[in-house]
Amino acid sequence: MKHFTSVHHIEDLDELLLLAKNIKSDPYANKSLGENKTLGLLFFNPSLRTRLSTQKAAANLGMNCITMNLNNEGWSLEFEEGAVMNGDKAEHIKEAAQVISQYCDIIAVRSFPTLTDKKKDEEEQVIQSFVKYATVPVISLEGATEHPLQALADILTIQEYKTKSKPKVVLTWAPHPKALPHAVPNSFVKMMQMAHVDFVIAHPHGYELDPEVTKGSIIVHNQEEAFAGADFIYAKNWSNYNDYGKILSQDASWTVTPEKMELTNRAKFMHCLPVRRNQIVSDAVLDSEASIVIPQANNRTYATQAILTQLLNHENK
Amino acid sequence: MKHFTSVHHIEDLDELLLLAKNIKSDPYANKSLGENKTLGLLFFNPSLRTRLSTQKAAANLGMNCITMNLNNEGWSLEFEEGAVMNGDKAEHIKEAAQVISQYCDIIAVRSFPTLTDKKKDEEEQVIQSFVKYATVPVISLEGATEHPLQALADILTIQEYKTKSKPKVVLTWAPHPKALPHAVPNSFVKMMQMAHVDFVIAHPHGYELDPEVTKGSIIVHNQEEAFAGADFIYAKNWSNYNDYGKILSQDASWTVTPEKMELTNRAKFMHCLPVRRNQIVSDAVLDSEASIVIPQANNRTYATQAILTQLLNHENK
Amino acid sequence: MKHFTSVHHIEDLDELLLLAKNIKSDPYANKSLGENKTLGLLFFNPSLRTRLSTQKAAANLGMNCITMNLNNEGWSLEFEEGAVMNGDKAEHIKEAAQVISQYCDIIAVRSFPTLTDKKKDEEEQVIQSFVKYATVPVISLEGATEHPLQALADILTIQEYKTKSKPKVVLTWAPHPKALPHAVPNSFVKMMQMAHVDFVIAHPHGYELDPEVTKGSIIVHNQEEAFAGADFIYAKNWSNYNDYGKILSQDASWTVTPEKMELTNRAKFMHCLPVRRNQIVSDAVLDSEASIVIPQANNRTYATQAILTQLLNHENK
Repeated sequence: MKHFTSVHHIEDLDELLLLAKNIKSDPYANKSLGENKTLGLLFFNPSLRTRLSTQKAAANLGMNCITMNLNNEGWSLEFEEGAVMNGDKAEHIKEAAQVISQYCDIIAVRSFPTLTDKKKDEEEQVIQSFVKYATVPVISLEGATEHPLQALADILTIQEYKTKSKPKVVLTWAPHPKALPHAVPNSFVKMMQMAHVDFVIAHPHGYELDPEVTKGSIIVHNQEEAFAGADFIYAKNWSNYNDYGKILSQDASWTVTPEKMELTNRAKFMHCLPVRRNQIVSDAVLDSEASIVIPQANNRTYATQAILTQLLNHENK
Repeated sequence: MKHFTSVHHIEDLDELLLLAKNIKSDPYANKSLGENKTLGLLFFNPSLRTRLSTQKAAANLGMNCITMNLNNEGWSLEFEEGAVMNGDKAEHIKEAAQVISQYCDIIAVRSFPTLTDKKKDEEEQVIQSFVKYATVPVISLEGATEHPLQALADILTIQEYKTKSKPKVVLTWAPHPKALPHAVPNSFVKMMQMAHVDFVIAHPHGYELDPEVTKGSIIVHNQEEAFAGADFIYAKNWSNYNDYGKILSQDASWTVTPEKMELTNRAKFMHCLPVRRNQIVSDAVLDSEASIVIPQANNRTYATQAILTQLLNHENK
Repeated sequence: MKHFTSVHHIEDLDELLLLAKNIKSDPYANKSLGENKTLGLLFFNPSLRTRLSTQKAAANLGMNCITMNLNNEGWSLEFEEGAVMNGDKAEHIKEAAQVISQYCDIIAVRSFPTLTDKKKDEEEQVIQSFVKYATVPVISLEGATEHPLQALADILTIQEYKTKSKPKVVLTWAPHPKALPHAVPNSFVKMMQMAHVDFVIAHPHGYELDPEVTKGSIIVHNQEEAFAGADFIYAKNWSNYNDYGKILSQDASWTVTPEKMELTNRAKFMHCLPVRRNQIVSDAVLDSEASIVIPQANNRTYATQAILTQLLNHENK
């Protein structure tokens, strides 16, 4: 693995999951691996879990970690090739990415989508510019279209909690008051397509995700039908993909409730967090034994530590 | 000690002060205690001394320290139980506190009062929500009603500078142009009630602190009377408690001046900092030999290191 | 060296450059030097290279590094002596500098000029106040009138890339849409005056730098004449010094182009970064083999590490 900006960069999922499990059982076993190595964490957007768990993962490996909020602590960046830089942008990503590569052994970047410019978002302009110009590995801390570290923590959690060889996993759309990105559902779909699971996507008519991502996956528009016999319910809102970035529905009938959980095979409830209580899911589900959102968040540390380990090992070759 | 959000959480003050003194004499003696332990510093408000001294204390113990400005680097938090989260708040404290507890071995939080909602402030909604939902020890870096780390540094400083077994300590209100919280005076009063001192509170009529806090302590309304024979003058402004959060007086006759210091027993001048020069105290006092505000601030490191030591030792049991 | 806020604080440039080169060849060789030492990085302004490279340099030496954005994470500071602090400023630099000196073994500060108040800028009010009140060494991370760490990285880079004993170095003004400080050109001029180089300054008429800085250096107003036979072209914009802080020219004929580089002795192109592409310099130059701006930025780490090494060694005496 040279970079980790997509679930599809995983070369051997079973091997990676085994690594993550071993790390979780003994997180400080490999503190010399990161000695004299620096991880640069660059944020263009807010973060809680990703920010803290990545710093924790780096510390567990003995890495030095430098965290920056690029949008207000540094210079505003220009991403267009050939730009005449006579406006507000003080520095071109060409210089920034090359320079940071000299101070950091791995660069990790969070950059959310515009949700207004579909083309630019799908090009992953920010993260792909870092990939293009950086001379060290780049990790996505959530881009415009993928959140691969989250998806890795998700499958690690499913592996821990599954009670049968091939569990039924349902990704269900749920209502939310704000327009949300497609990164988390996209990466989750891609991960489920790689994993040994029965996978179903449920969403209202018109809320299709990118068909390139979902092709081959079962999609239903009846949430109750999807929940029947499910072992894992993964709830997530996303804004409209076709009418890009718009909120066409806040249909409260898609909120995950105890009644709906009754339709499942005593399913575990998952969410990437932060979660809007009593919008995405009712308190009664989130506060029940069925909810595994907290251990799911804990696995962010070990998923990230596994990726850092693979990237550092690859560099050392 | 399970948490440290109030002076009253101190189990044995003499033992704690002895620990702090030993740490001060050899700050790096226990660097293995914090190995593979992470301290999460969460700020909802500005900080200089607390921010730096706590990071320093953690480093002295070999701890990894992660610092976050929660109000702009993370997600806005909802604190109300049962909230229907369809507004601006993206994450409930229930999830946030549990999640952070998985990445951090100790959580430290600064959250100032509203100074408009007395009930909410007295409930210490933010810090108490962390205490309620976190699964690791919580330290107050100054809450709405207490600043216990400051009070511990204060008594440590008094012990170092006292020239008699039972010194006379005066907490005096002093004028300030902005409405200030009651956290520092409250914790100082509670600490003086536990310590072996003659303690007097001086403030203008109508500027009573919470009577639950001050009960049993001597209160006078004549500053000069209070200063007579004092060994320590601790100046501090607070906004009105009865007419909650209001500034009813900026009476310049309460500024601490050299003339007033003449009334004392060559008293030392103390303040928690930051201090408004020529409002709280005149330059002539602050720049004199009598002022011990700088070594007082230095003791913040050792007070915090003592608390971290006790919490880590408690966790290791 | 007690402080490092000016190029003129360098005691022996050859010795310092030798130290920097040795550090670059083995950056982690002296990790015990910084053990139990804390570097405080205080930013009043944005920073990318300085922020990251200084943290990296500190880590390479085994130092603990605490980074703060003083303008929004701490308290607003008062710098005037004798101020009656009844306005917006919450803390006086007298206390702040003394207090931070107790938590940090070295204090490093970035504070840009106002570009409106020439007198205040030339007094370097912020950095000089730290020098005055701090009780530990102070490093400039770019002040109002100097950026000495940049100049040290610059001469280190020139030494690495020069192909003759005494190369011709040209500092050329170039156009920019915003008013920029004089700190970088000032420090570069002072450094070139100390180094074994043929040095020429080129700028449009009326764009003189501080004559106290440039006295003794050759100044020409014809850029092409200056470029003839040059081994290094160092481009930089600065706002007007006489009509202080104003932009009197954005003359595009001063942009550094391939045609102008043809006039040189196959000169290397240098810039401190961030650089405005197609304003200061055309893409064709910056993307050519002649450009050494990326390795120049890399040398920021080793320049800073050399300064930290000298200051720590001085303290240990």
